[in-house]
Amino acid sequence: MAGNDTGNGDTAGRVRSSFKRQRYMETIGATLRSVEPGRVSIRLPFRDDLTQQHGYLHAGVVGAALDSACGYAAYSMMPGGMAVLTVEYKINLLAPAAGTEFVATARVLRAGRTLSVCTAEMVARSAAGERTIAAMQATIVGLPNQPDRRD
Amino acid sequence: MAGNDTGNGDTAGRVRSSFKRQRYMETIGATLRSVEPGRVSIRLPFRDDLTQQHGYLHAGVVGAALDSACGYAAYSMMPGGMAVLTVEYKINLLAPAAGTEFVATARVLRAGRTLSVCTAEMVARSAAGERTIAAMQATIVGLPNQPDRRD
Amino acid sequence: MAGNDTGNGDTAGRVRSSFKRQRYMETIGATLRSVEPGRVSIRLPFRDDLTQQHGYLHAGVVGAALDSACGYAAYSMMPGGMAVLTVEYKINLLAPAAGTEFVATARVLRAGRTLSVCTAEMVARSAAGERTIAAMQATIVGLPNQPDRRD
Amino acid sequence: MAGNDTGNGDTAGRVRSSFKRQRYMETIGATLRSVEPGRVSIRLPFRDDLTQQHGYLHAGVVGAALDSACGYAAYSMMPGGMAVLTVEYKINLLAPAAGTEFVATARVLRAGRTLSVCTAEMVARSAAGERTIAAMQATIVGLPNQPDRRD
Repeated sequence: MAGNDTGNGDTAGRVRSSFKRQRYMETIGATLRSVEPGRVSIRLPFRDDLTQQHGYLHAGVVGAALDSACGYAAYSMMPGGMAVLTVEYKINLLAPAAGTEFVATARVLRAGRTLSVCTAEMVARSAAGERTIAAMQATIVGLPNQPDRRD
Repeated sequence: MAGNDTGNGDTAGRVRSSFKRQRYMETIGATLRSVEPGRVSIRLPFRDDLTQQHGYLHAGVVGAALDSACGYAAYSMMPGGMAVLTVEYKINLLAPAAGTEFVATARVLRAGRTLSVCTAEMVARSAAGERTIAAMQATIVGLPNQPDRRD
Repeated sequence: MAGNDTGNGDTAGRVRSSFKRQRYMETIGATLRSVEPGRVSIRLPFRDDLTQQHGYLHAGVVGAALDSACGYAAYSMMPGGMAVLTVEYKINLLAPAAGTEFVATARVLRAGRTLSVCTAEMVARSAAGERTIAAMQATIVGLPNQPDRRD
Repeated sequence: MAGNDTGNGDTAGRVRSSFKRQRYMETIGATLRSVEPGRVSIRLPFRDDLTQQHGYLHAGVVGAALDSACGYAAYSMMPGGMAVLTVEYKINLLAPAAGTEFVATARVLRAGRTLSVCTAEMVARSAAGERTIAAMQATIVGLPNQPDRRD
């Protein structure tokens, strides 16, 4: 915890540092909300330029925030020096993505040396309250010695 | 485009008109490349603000372009006046999304009254040639009497 | 419980009755373990004739038990007289399916008029204890006026 | 091709040998129909003890045959001495699995050192002709030095 990044020592720091390098997360206005080992939450305010033809958040944006949450949940369980890539993900849209703010929360189901599996849900918040609008199941691969760019 | 929208009469026109209302497609710079009944292709030039931590296109952007291609491939087989929503999709990332331009092409496997199923692939183009980098399988639901916004 | 099958009145009875008509569940030795509205659990003892090439339970058998659990979890939330069909499912195998007995438990994430979404997990039991070996996410469609065979 | 099992030399032989050890394939009456590098086809005659509540082939049986086809398609591209395990699969049921015989055919989309990705379809044959009833996308992992049982 003393600043050097070995093992799970500074999980939150490593995740936050890598997240900042996901330029696309900045593009859509997504921010890290919380990081614990095996559990990561991402916040995404509604923006009209992220919508599909009916004015709801585009299913691809929903998928992107959930995918990043899954990737970093897996990353948070890995030793330092690893890189994560998404192998695959599957998403169900449970209700139209209407709301003022969206929170994607992922947790690790399997933390493997190579392959990790995560499950995630997105909650939409509006004046009417909270509603779960999407669920994801994702497979993430950890690769050794693959630093993020600009490291 | 002559005003009346009956049956599959003006498939391409209906798809292009709805695609324009997907503000998120404009946000990421995606454009319709081709529209045939049951087959839709979307073009997406590389942009650094769409990347993940290693500088590749973010898996969520890959998923978004493929999802829109699937949705409009399904839409192209439906009668006029229907709206499409994504029920679910599953994507495999086959190779890092590196390239100067990406083309997502979807085709309909099942064109149902309510549920349609599509398969789609994304090809990355670079100086080195073409490479298939992702594959999707998606379920789309058609809803009657649900016009796009701003119709 | 008074014998007539209206609404969710006799959920468990309807599920048990339909489950008996799934001849394949009998073929693999699967039985209903518990039925509550929105939550169904299926038990499957290990059998060597259900294995793949390494002696573990075949991924297809794992998928079958989870799929039935999802289908009946969705069914348990529907009014009487509906039939359920699987639209699609996605399964992650988290660990080799080794054990003496397996329990697949599904719960409903979205109970819709037409489309329901379920999530499910399979636990393997052995002398060493319990271990979650698979996770599923499934979409189920409810169809009116489609009685089971032999009703 | 001279009998020893090095590299891709005797692809079909290795696949057929491993398939025989999948006791579950024998249980449901599935047989290998054809094996080429990167493409494997499995035949499954209809049997009433493989059905769901409406008398169609159970979605879990459909998934099992497609999963085995995917696993062996991936296996057919690997060097000798490797074992394959399913990481995950996703299946869409396109039409009720009605017919006298079913053929599941898989082909490799990505043949990786560790991870392979396959796509597969199942065709139902009946007096009325052929119909594609299911589509799968699957991720397979290859593990070195993990011989099948009874090798």
